[in-house]
Amino acid sequence: MLFFENDYGEGAHSAILKRLSETNFEKLPGYGSDTYTQSAKEKIRNACAAPDADVFFLMGGTQTNAIVISTLLKRYEGVVCAQTGHINSHEAGAIEYTGHKVLALPQHNGKIAADELRQYLTGFYADENHEHMVFPGMVYISHPTEYGTLYTKSELEALSAICRDYEIPLYMDGARLGYGLVCPDTDVTLPDIARLTDVFYIGGTKVGALCGEAVVFPKKAPAHFMTMIKQQGALLAKGRLLGIQFDTLFTDELYKKISANALHTASRLKAALKAKGYRFLLDSPTNQIFVVLDNETLERLRREVVFSFWEKCDDSHTAIRFATSWATAMDDVDALIQLL
Amino acid sequence: MLFFENDYGEGAHSAILKRLSETNFEKLPGYGSDTYTQSAKEKIRNACAAPDADVFFLMGGTQTNAIVISTLLKRYEGVVCAQTGHINSHEAGAIEYTGHKVLALPQHNGKIAADELRQYLTGFYADENHEHMVFPGMVYISHPTEYGTLYTKSELEALSAICRDYEIPLYMDGARLGYGLVCPDTDVTLPDIARLTDVFYIGGTKVGALCGEAVVFPKKAPAHFMTMIKQQGALLAKGRLLGIQFDTLFTDELYKKISANALHTASRLKAALKAKGYRFLLDSPTNQIFVVLDNETLERLRREVVFSFWEKCDDSHTAIRFATSWATAMDDVDALIQLL
Amino acid sequence: MLFFENDYGEGAHSAILKRLSETNFEKLPGYGSDTYTQSAKEKIRNACAAPDADVFFLMGGTQTNAIVISTLLKRYEGVVCAQTGHINSHEAGAIEYTGHKVLALPQHNGKIAADELRQYLTGFYADENHEHMVFPGMVYISHPTEYGTLYTKSELEALSAICRDYEIPLYMDGARLGYGLVCPDTDVTLPDIARLTDVFYIGGTKVGALCGEAVVFPKKAPAHFMTMIKQQGALLAKGRLLGIQFDTLFTDELYKKISANALHTASRLKAALKAKGYRFLLDSPTNQIFVVLDNETLERLRREVVFSFWEKCDDSHTAIRFATSWATAMDDVDALIQLL
Amino acid sequence: MLFFENDYGEGAHSAILKRLSETNFEKLPGYGSDTYTQSAKEKIRNACAAPDADVFFLMGGTQTNAIVISTLLKRYEGVVCAQTGHINSHEAGAIEYTGHKVLALPQHNGKIAADELRQYLTGFYADENHEHMVFPGMVYISHPTEYGTLYTKSELEALSAICRDYEIPLYMDGARLGYGLVCPDTDVTLPDIARLTDVFYIGGTKVGALCGEAVVFPKKAPAHFMTMIKQQGALLAKGRLLGIQFDTLFTDELYKKISANALHTASRLKAALKAKGYRFLLDSPTNQIFVVLDNETLERLRREVVFSFWEKCDDSHTAIRFATSWATAMDDVDALIQLL
Repeated sequence: MLFFENDYGEGAHSAILKRLSETNFEKLPGYGSDTYTQSAKEKIRNACAAPDADVFFLMGGTQTNAIVISTLLKRYEGVVCAQTGHINSHEAGAIEYTGHKVLALPQHNGKIAADELRQYLTGFYADENHEHMVFPGMVYISHPTEYGTLYTKSELEALSAICRDYEIPLYMDGARLGYGLVCPDTDVTLPDIARLTDVFYIGGTKVGALCGEAVVFPKKAPAHFMTMIKQQGALLAKGRLLGIQFDTLFTDELYKKISANALHTASRLKAALKAKGYRFLLDSPTNQIFVVLDNETLERLRREVVFSFWEKCDDSHTAIRFATSWATAMDDVDALIQLL
Repeated sequence: MLFFENDYGEGAHSAILKRLSETNFEKLPGYGSDTYTQSAKEKIRNACAAPDADVFFLMGGTQTNAIVISTLLKRYEGVVCAQTGHINSHEAGAIEYTGHKVLALPQHNGKIAADELRQYLTGFYADENHEHMVFPGMVYISHPTEYGTLYTKSELEALSAICRDYEIPLYMDGARLGYGLVCPDTDVTLPDIARLTDVFYIGGTKVGALCGEAVVFPKKAPAHFMTMIKQQGALLAKGRLLGIQFDTLFTDELYKKISANALHTASRLKAALKAKGYRFLLDSPTNQIFVVLDNETLERLRREVVFSFWEKCDDSHTAIRFATSWATAMDDVDALIQLL
Repeated sequence: MLFFENDYGEGAHSAILKRLSETNFEKLPGYGSDTYTQSAKEKIRNACAAPDADVFFLMGGTQTNAIVISTLLKRYEGVVCAQTGHINSHEAGAIEYTGHKVLALPQHNGKIAADELRQYLTGFYADENHEHMVFPGMVYISHPTEYGTLYTKSELEALSAICRDYEIPLYMDGARLGYGLVCPDTDVTLPDIARLTDVFYIGGTKVGALCGEAVVFPKKAPAHFMTMIKQQGALLAKGRLLGIQFDTLFTDELYKKISANALHTASRLKAALKAKGYRFLLDSPTNQIFVVLDNETLERLRREVVFSFWEKCDDSHTAIRFATSWATAMDDVDALIQLL
Repeated sequence: MLFFENDYGEGAHSAILKRLSETNFEKLPGYGSDTYTQSAKEKIRNACAAPDADVFFLMGGTQTNAIVISTLLKRYEGVVCAQTGHINSHEAGAIEYTGHKVLALPQHNGKIAADELRQYLTGFYADENHEHMVFPGMVYISHPTEYGTLYTKSELEALSAICRDYEIPLYMDGARLGYGLVCPDTDVTLPDIARLTDVFYIGGTKVGALCGEAVVFPKKAPAHFMTMIKQQGALLAKGRLLGIQFDTLFTDELYKKISANALHTASRLKAALKAKGYRFLLDSPTNQIFVVLDNETLERLRREVVFSFWEKCDDSHTAIRFATSWATAMDDVDALIQLL
């Protein structure tokens, strides 16, 4: 079977496994106080051009979202996001579990629109009953979004300006950030993100790591953030596991290099789909490709390829997703193209 | 420097790293639905002689405690434990964060006494105001305890009987379970634990894994336990990372074999300490050794050995802890003995 | 100024104040164990034709919603309601504070549609990712709704049937229940509600009481519901305050009699508005009247009448709400009609 | 039966019922924005000599404790209190339900000792593992305590100084504050309390009100405190119910005058008990009297007097509590004395 189901189907990039082995018997202090973790943080600060950034490593995306959001929100605040935001739909209520409401705005190919955000915030404070309502305390965006789309730099600047006007943090979920950063169509860099957001994370799980996400506070983390990580059960005794992985990913730009593979393979696949007249659900510039298949094609492909069901379009058509990743072999893409 | 600070100073047992590498490029489904995770569960069921057990893998001890306890307790219940229980002191309030009180009983070398537990439960229901109080909804014990001590089989049977009388689950925190199971002094086996508790976990982080704990419900897990794991941010996309590790640890009894190393090295160190007239804070039969040092010795050893400060005894004496582990080299023990 | 702002502008019905005075120096046991509270419960059971019902008294609507919902939901569940449901918009995130998501469905004049509810539930379980999502664990409706509209008996039967198919409770927020029960257009009685829902509350605050809502579980309350009331800070030491009020309201059908006043006064006001050609935002059959005013009329009325702003319709029109209540004097209605 | 069971056995002081009736049909705005509530706040500010104080009215003691504590604590903090503190034992885990640990110190007749508090705080920060522990974020005391005892001014000054050194708020639970303020033995005044604490509440439920407690922040309340009150379900639509009661209690020093009755009656009862050779469990200077009875006396009194069981002392003795209140008639005291 050809595998295009998701971008977390393999283990880790070989360089990571190699470093884990090489350092395995070094006796290191726990909880992220080891030298590899410190080195990884420094490399990330450099890559972000954010020398004062506070960096923390966590295990996965939902965990990161829950900790960052619950830690930054005040008791009476909720988090604003797109209707399709991961936190609003596919995290089993992890945000609400911490006591906060998710305030959904309309989505446009997975993104929120700056004017709608401003309208929402203005409207909130104009409502004379707003003290009986959940205050918007933070804005969550994902980049790439759940649909693989990207914000432009000017879109990010607009969102950032609104958040600063209202003095609420802008938070970017970068579960697939690598695939956004190396996209030929993007004008957004890591330093841009560090400049325009108040906190974001650099996804490892979907970009070459066994596990792990790097949370970056470009200015400053909340006081006692480590204790709150512990309180939510996310402080790893062997912090080295995350430190070594990110130290490797941020050595010699490995993170970007392996991200590029996902884009190259996706690009060839997209071109072939287009050439063969397939219809796209939407135009995604990164590693996720959303295609509308008729029932017959769906059944035929399913026998030889693993992909994700996305949504039923009508009785005879279904949208599906092909995902490539850092680990996708071009041979597999070619084999898939043969089958189309 | 000689390292006796804790039992999580190294990475993973080599067999684990080897298996992670061998399987690295297999394309596996996520969230614990892969074959290695299934195989690990089956091996654990066998080791526990509990063919119907539900097994789940989580990342670390605090996370496991928070998820198990918050999932099993009813809204109006708290968890009973020893004053020195890890959940009561060193988990940053992770249990309370989920909304539940920790109800502390007196500790006896880290253990709770069955008669005191029964007295507490009887007294609770006899108190006519008990509907205004937190109901005892679960009993938490650690084995080995935070002091390295072990419950005897008859002590466990007594606790288990009380819990069944009151229809509340008995939960064992087995962060260091391996070191308890192979202790020459114990009469408690894994099948005993599966028979006498309602849920327990088999610690991986401190016993040879990079990370990970195996939660075992000998009879049945709560409905939708996976969704609650997700809700608390603990569901790993690459579940293989935990599955492969535990599959390795439970192949050919590796878990017990590597645990034995901690006991052998501890045993030699204890004998030497005793021979040289050192005073023990308490008699611990597993891999943690608590010794009372005078200031002069403390200062002298500190220059060449890393160990844990435990508590100040008086102006001229301090209790410290030496910990051995699956990875401790006998040569290091011998070197330490030379320094004593 | 004429007062049509809301239905909680006055204190309590005189009969209530009289009973509070008459019983004031009786020495009664606390926490709802007094005879007046017992008597009130019995009268409510009778009025509901639900002899086995469990009845509890709480202080206000948001408190009641938070306690009922958080107590009935399982950890991994959320509550389904209309987009405009009070819990979704005007309770400051009280439901999310207890850890649960509010799952909003489209609203139709404040109501949810049975077919959309069934579609949502079917769709949820059909989604292969649903274990990563918040389970729908309860359905919340308000009756009258936030727009003063009412469910018909057949609509309630349809919702009830769906909830029973999915084995999730149907909960009715009856903050203004009296005004619904005495509406000439309704075919829904208190026994119908007790038969078709799993829990509902009979609003006191907006229907003649100083404070208080009566929660009715037609079959059975959750175990230790009183302890959970205490845990959420809602157990009144002087439970008599609530018991005496509801005992009075449910003596000689006082609750219905005083509710009728709100309907009579609203009815006369509506007729006059219609006769004078005012445009209604929607057709509400109970005590809330939603009218669209042009700016000039708005300004003119505002000088002599207190009413609620509802929403801006366009640059020259605004929707406002007139509310009548158990305490509205027909003279005030006539005075308002003069001003129209 | 003579009633000495508690201090909340009657309704409200007659002046309160009178004011509720007189103002009943005034049409007042909701949620505490009415003039009576404003007037009550101003009178309380004056009584406290705290012109900048923020004052809020809540319904009951547990609710007040849960809201104040959960609102002031940071996410990683717990509240320090005496082992016997109400929040630690008799509030059904209301504090933990909000996510925070109660950190118990030894009690001395219901009080905490300043030196033990300082030692605890010093020890906490000296512990190198404290980032894995719950930070002490607030100190809770009750005055009078659960045992009817009172802090002296110098004791309060010592606790206050420690809290200011550590920059954590000092919070006083004044459920029975009136009975403390008028105690002949006390040197603590309301202005002292406003000066030495950061927040406290003036109990109404046990001192003449139907319900209600006045929360006073001598300097400043947390931002959006009202929204958080709403979020915890405690915002009363008819805020007048609380405002009018406290406005009455703080007119012409009614609060103190009616409190004095509890002390006078308690004083006569204590003198008689002493004269007749009864043994006291402890010496309480306020309205709660703790007496040790032998079984025979216990049985005899029980037939004609309602009092509270406190604790079993030994097989033949039991400690019980007699409570007087603002409503206790001296005739009842005399009748009880006859029975002794």
